[in-house]
Amino acid sequence: MSVSPLRLGIAGLGTVGGGVVRLVSEQSDLLQARCGRPIQVAAVSALDQNKDRGLDLSAFDWHDDPVVMAGSDAIDVFVELIGGEDGPAKVAVEAAIAAGKNVVTANKALIAHHGTALAIEAERRGVTLNFEAAIAGGIPIVKAIREGLAGNNFTRVYGILNGTCNYILSAMRDSSRDFADVLNEAQELGYAEADPAFDVDGVDAAHKLAILTSLAFGCPVNLEAVHIEGIRQVSAIDIEFATELGYHIKLLGIARLTDHGVEQRVHPCMVAEESAIASVGGVFNAVVAEGEYIDKVVFEGRGAGEGPTASAVMGDVIDVARGNRLPTFSIAADSLRPIQSATMDHHVGPYYVRLTVIDQPGVIADISAILRDRNISIGSMLQRGRDPGEPVPVVLITHECKEKALTKAMEQISALKAVAEEPKIIRIEAL
Amino acid sequence: MSVSPLRLGIAGLGTVGGGVVRLVSEQSDLLQARCGRPIQVAAVSALDQNKDRGLDLSAFDWHDDPVVMAGSDAIDVFVELIGGEDGPAKVAVEAAIAAGKNVVTANKALIAHHGTALAIEAERRGVTLNFEAAIAGGIPIVKAIREGLAGNNFTRVYGILNGTCNYILSAMRDSSRDFADVLNEAQELGYAEADPAFDVDGVDAAHKLAILTSLAFGCPVNLEAVHIEGIRQVSAIDIEFATELGYHIKLLGIARLTDHGVEQRVHPCMVAEESAIASVGGVFNAVVAEGEYIDKVVFEGRGAGEGPTASAVMGDVIDVARGNRLPTFSIAADSLRPIQSATMDHHVGPYYVRLTVIDQPGVIADISAILRDRNISIGSMLQRGRDPGEPVPVVLITHECKEKALTKAMEQISALKAVAEEPKIIRIEAL
Repeated sequence: MSVSPLRLGIAGLGTVGGGVVRLVSEQSDLLQARCGRPIQVAAVSALDQNKDRGLDLSAFDWHDDPVVMAGSDAIDVFVELIGGEDGPAKVAVEAAIAAGKNVVTANKALIAHHGTALAIEAERRGVTLNFEAAIAGGIPIVKAIREGLAGNNFTRVYGILNGTCNYILSAMRDSSRDFADVLNEAQELGYAEADPAFDVDGVDAAHKLAILTSLAFGCPVNLEAVHIEGIRQVSAIDIEFATELGYHIKLLGIARLTDHGVEQRVHPCMVAEESAIASVGGVFNAVVAEGEYIDKVVFEGRGAGEGPTASAVMGDVIDVARGNRLPTFSIAADSLRPIQSATMDHHVGPYYVRLTVIDQPGVIADISAILRDRNISIGSMLQRGRDPGEPVPVVLITHECKEKALTKAMEQISALKAVAEEPKIIRIEAL
Repeated sequence: MSVSPLRLGIAGLGTVGGGVVRLVSEQSDLLQARCGRPIQVAAVSALDQNKDRGLDLSAFDWHDDPVVMAGSDAIDVFVELIGGEDGPAKVAVEAAIAAGKNVVTANKALIAHHGTALAIEAERRGVTLNFEAAIAGGIPIVKAIREGLAGNNFTRVYGILNGTCNYILSAMRDSSRDFADVLNEAQELGYAEADPAFDVDGVDAAHKLAILTSLAFGCPVNLEAVHIEGIRQVSAIDIEFATELGYHIKLLGIARLTDHGVEQRVHPCMVAEESAIASVGGVFNAVVAEGEYIDKVVFEGRGAGEGPTASAVMGDVIDVARGNRLPTFSIAADSLRPIQSATMDHHVGPYYVRLTVIDQPGVIADISAILRDRNISIGSMLQRGRDPGEPVPVVLITHECKEKALTKAMEQISALKAVAEEPKIIRIEAL
């Protein structure tokens, strides 16, 4: 093993970049012992050299342009912590690969949009493209799927992939408040961005799911195939009913092998309160990998923040330092083959349906008949209060049925005079 | 990457060996895609060639003697699934290393007793010694600590490391039965051995903990330093009190960095019911790694059985097939340095104490005075029933105190006339 130091060039000095600089400095002896060689920060790049970051950067080469740093002879690994699917992050990563540098990135948007092309190029050049920090922060889930569990044919991989959404849903449940109220609080606490769309609309989780799918099923990253619903429509009353019925509501990203291909979907799910995932609260993330041999393995940890993300970045760097080269997406990138995508029409599962119906004789009979005609059977029904002539909530839990059938049934049910609002539907995920 | 097949010699054809043979056969295309080369079973060895194992072994070289197979030119990896700390397993692994073969083993006793010496020899010869399956079955925890989380200075690593004990304790809690009763049931169900000592006395968990400690803290495996208590003394009444107080009782293996060195201890613990570990029931295992950067990462999965263990073995084999060579215990084996062991006298934590005292005036005052004089403060006290002149249970939860002080106090308390039985003490682990 070489004793020459592994020299890092760090592009982006925000929270994560600062964390990596600190970790490398604080743990230098440990890293040297574990890697058999020193790890050093050699160069850094960010927008403003004069900004006070609370870091001593004087020992590092400074680059205003990350693309120039990417090609510098002074670095062995380009650590991309700029973010964004295009722009300087992409250009710099491409330049680093072209210059024969190993790349470590925390950029899920970049990998979700361009991961396959970048992996093909990196493998062609014989360099590493690692992105442990792109999924689930401090949880080493990329390594687990690509390596430790690589003897398994995965059947389903799913998880809580966005800490902001999990914080909001957990707080809504704990305090019986509505989405908008809790979002405000999360923004004040710094758990949600000023523009929360990327998180609460499920886009961030979709990026991570698309990458997980490629790792688990050996297909090119296909973000377009992900069905995405966010959490804006989750209401306090649905959380209340969920609790009453023994469920928690979680935003899950789920990749599942079905008879119609691989489903990729991000949406609010009801999960049984006794499942491992239900008890994952606050900003924590969790990922569950299921396969024939392992049954299931659950991973839980902090999904964001300086320390956990820096830990993940360093895991990738340590692999490079030790000389381990891995197929970027579990198999050689030029062997990744598209896999059939199962559309939501083909989705089969149980559903939670909340109807708002005028409390009058015959309405439940009408609804039941429509469901029966679509072969949808009802596992349980819950009516909250009685108020003759006024709208009341009625909740149905269906047995497994086809989403297409449910959608059609809901169109018919919506058209009933006694049905006062659009039905509210939340998928139940059997775990 | 070489396209020559990686040839396995499998020693031991019990449940796990059979599982590995099956996995390699069933997943050959997947393994080839993920490793870039075929993986094949080339040779097998077991005690009785004529035993019906439900496996077609006709395509493999048969060896009565695993030591001969270990040196065979027909294999690249010696997969040791014989078990036992000495005897043929050890001799064969040594022979394999001496012959320049990579070794993959599921043998925790072997690694706990001889891991350091074997690792030094393997690294000297430039071969791999992998043992993912030795700890927590299907959970890729060795890889996580050695690689994914290797940027962290670990502060505590702990877990439910023995599925038999966890099954028994979970069943005791669920059905309010005593140890002996549930052990019988576990034996009938095949979750406990006819001779259960190895599991229920904590020896198996201690083996795994000693290995985890070496991986996390970079020291030679030191099984002698592990403080071991099993679960035979856990009684239904303590589980009942635990539940009442908001705790579960779990057999944990814990390695913790303290001011007095590294504690290694296996014993029943009370853990808060809202902790991730408390909800891990039945035969499942879980490991939690804590460090400054990650905070904590929780891993949960099946700790034994054909599929999960075969999955772990294959994870190790895949690393070899991909050409990844890792420091056996996270750092180079010849750099492992003994670390100071903290004895239990120095242990500091809260405690559950159950006393059986004659229900008469003044006894609680006497007990309280003894504890006060030892600087032990009481967080809560619980008395079950009143029965003047008769023995009744009194439960104390202490604040953090020194184990040595508690032990001394208990000697004094035991000597009180009104104290009818030896105090029962269970450590509380703050998670």
